[in-house]
Order: sequence, then C-alpha cells, then structure tokens
Amino acid sequence: MSEPDIFYILGNKVRRDLLSHLTCTECYFSLLSNKVSVSSTAVSKHLKIMEREGLLKSYEKEGKFIGPVRKYYKITLSSTYVVTVTPNLFWYRGIKLDEKPKLKRFEIDLENLEESPNTLQSMVLNLIDANKQLHILLEALKSLESYRDMLVKTIKERYLKDIGDMTQLAILHYLMLYGEATIEDLSDRLNIKEREVIKKAEELNKFVPLTIKDRTIKIDEEKLRKVAK
Amino acid sequence: MSEPDIFYILGNKVRRDLLSHLTCTECYFSLLSNKVSVSSTAVSKHLKIMEREGLLKSYEKEGKFIGPVRKYYKITLSSTYVVTVTPNLFWYRGIKLDEKPKLKRFEIDLENLEESPNTLQSMVLNLIDANKQLHILLEALKSLESYRDMLVKTIKERYLKDIGDMTQLAILHYLMLYGEATIEDLSDRLNIKEREVIKKAEELNKFVPLTIKDRTIKIDEEKLRKVAK
Repeated sequence: MSEPDIFYILGNKVRRDLLSHLTCTECYFSLLSNKVSVSSTAVSKHLKIMEREGLLKSYEKEGKFIGPVRKYYKITLSSTYVVTVTPNLFWYRGIKLDEKPKLKRFEIDLENLEESPNTLQSMVLNLIDANKQLHILLEALKSLESYRDMLVKTIKERYLKDIGDMTQLAILHYLMLYGEATIEDLSDRLNIKEREVIKKAEELNKFVPLTIKDRTIKIDEEKLRKVAK
Repeated sequence: MSEPDIFYILGNKVRRDLLSHLTCTECYFSLLSNKVSVSSTAVSKHLKIMEREGLLKSYEKEGKFIGPVRKYYKITLSSTYVVTVTPNLFWYRGIKLDEKPKLKRFEIDLENLEESPNTLQSMVLNLIDANKQLHILLEALKSLESYRDMLVKTIKERYLKDIGDMTQLAILHYLMLYGEATIEDLSDRLNIKEREVIKKAEELNKFVPLTIKDRTIKIDEEKLRKVAK
C-alpha cells in the first residue's frame, strides 16, 4: 500500500478504532462490531474499504466451542509513517518494518548544524547536513518500531498461551502503548463495565505488576524490574 | 488541529498537491488552480476544507503590479506526525514544532534491548525500555524538523530577496527536500515546459551549484561545500 492510501484509511475515526482493536487480539466481525459505536453495516463498509486497500485480510475459522464458522480479520501491513507539514515544508515517508531490527546505537548529531548560517550557500549546505541526520533518524525509527512490533507479538502470544484472558491482555496492550490509563478510558475503549476493568486489572497485576491509584492504572516499572531479574 | 484531522486532509491527492505548492511560495487562488489538474471549483472546495480544519488561512493582498486584490493562502500549522501500523501495534503522535530547535546530540540506544527475552515480565520491561528510546527519538525529530523548517524559511526569504525568481526557487525547494529530480518530474510538478526547467536550472546553478546529467538534476554537494567555505 502506498503512503497516501494509508492517510485516507486513517482519516476516519471508526477505521482507527477498528485498527486499534485488531492490533490487540484476533477479531471476528461481531466482536469488532460490538467495540465501536456505529451500526454493523457501517463496520462492514469500513472493513471492506480496508480490505480493498490491502490493509486487512479476512479469513474464516470455526468458533472455539460449538458454533458457526466466523469471519476473522487481521492487519497485513507493517509500516511506520512520518509526515511534516509547516508553511515551508511538506513531505511524508512510509517505511516498511523489518523482521530483523538492528539493535545498535544511533546517533542523531545536530550539534554541528549552524544556528543561523549567513550565506545562501551555507544555508543549503546546512539543510543537506540536516537531511543526513534525518536519514539516520528514520533508520533508528525503523529498527525501533520493528523491535516493538516483534516484542508485542511475543507478549500477546505468551499471554494468550499462559493466561488466556483476552480482556486482561487488552488492558496490558493499552498500558504498554500509552504508559497509563484511567479506569473510565479502559471501560469506554474495551466496552466493559468499570468494575470489570478493576477486576481484570487486579488479575493482570498477578503477572505484570501494576499500580492502581486515583482511578489510574499504570505498569509498576520499579517492581517489574525486580521481578524480571 | 487534532492529529486525526490531518490524516483526513492528507487522504486526498489534490489537497496534498496544493500543500506542496503552498510550502514553496506565497500562492493566490488562480496560481494554485493552474498547478493542479482539477477544476477551479474542486480547488476551491479543497481549500475551503483545509481552511475549515484550521490548516490554512486566506488573506487578501493587492497584486504586485497593477491588478485586482487577490486571495492568498498560507499554511498555519507546524507539526510532524508519526504513525505505526502493524498486526500488533497501532499508534500515532502529532508533535508541534518549536521556534527554537535544540541543536544537540541525541542518542537512540537500542544496544541494551534484549533480542529475545524469556519471561513475560522481561518482555514487558524491554518494551518499556524501547518506549523510552522512542521518546528520545521523537524529541530528536521535533528538533530536526523545527530546524529544517526554520532553514527553508530563511532560504526562501533570501532567494526571493536576492534573486527573486519563483520558478528557480521552486526547483531549489524540490531538490532540497528530495535530493534530486528528473527534468520530467519538475516539468509536471511546476507545470512548465521541459526546456524551461533546463533554462531555470541553469540560472539557479549560478547561485547553488547543480549537476545536470542524464536528465536528472542534483545539488552538487562537493562544489557547494567549497563555495560555502
């Protein structure tokens, strides 16, 4: 998928919400439809658009227990995008992520750029030098996002295999991406009751230490660091 | 403007083309309308959408010589956006650019991240550590894009003041952003004849050294580095 198409896809809130849910766990149609606040006809339309644009694939699979064959959806793209818009600059770049991130040190050195070059020639030269640093930065972004993708994938697999609770996993997924969440946020987002959020967070806390204070849930990094050693 | 609106704006080719032209120089309606391949009604509609979303402002100004008052447009946003979409991750962030970029060294250190952590806890911990590196990377991106914006602004002002040719400036602007361009590209993009592109590039070459070879135009960095000293 080319860069501009992704902007078209992202330019709609329902599609963004559907993508969020799809990154969290395997989703079938009625599950997705329950999570967003529009009609199932609209959900169906948006899923079709994303499928047509090559962002999603659907596949059929039988229900876990007795039940009909269900239509599942998964994201088939792995990319990161950077866009800058100013009165003087407009550019965008799409970067395909890698299976093998480079876990090395990247140095973005802006120290040698002149703050206010005098001549037209030295201005252009400084811009060329800044472009080179941007190139390194995009390389670092590619590695970092490839690594995070790989890690979240293994975390999801491990959690579902060992603990097997999708709601706990959804809370963990959100906390890993955004650092913290209020109980209200999670209740809206996962479309479950607030007391259910608290109960699930307390269960999750047995595996990944959390702090729950002032109705805000966070990963307890200090405690996690001790447990992980 | 919130982040998602920008995706809606960018999800349309005509709007992207209009933005490109607007970053290059001061534009009035009929100039913009000439540069893109849709009707002036469509151009008007897209400009209105971007104005409504707070991305553009219009203002009236008299023509340079004798002529009617013209409606000009300028971009009022200065931001950079990062989006990642994978089967496991979906997030986006909008970063407002600064007047004062931090011209320092940023180190994105991925060396200490574990390639394949064993326990669920150490996986989550590595993700938290990766998130911290992402934070540094976004700080670097903010400084870098603020610097590039500032520099392109001064280059545009200087070029218009000293040389005053908008087509030469448009070629320079494109080369600075993309490194190189074919004559065909520039002809399509600026909506001028190919021989005009060559003539303008030769004039630009007097101020900023270029190489024109195999119908491809590039900034001659080596020569520029000598001239700028």
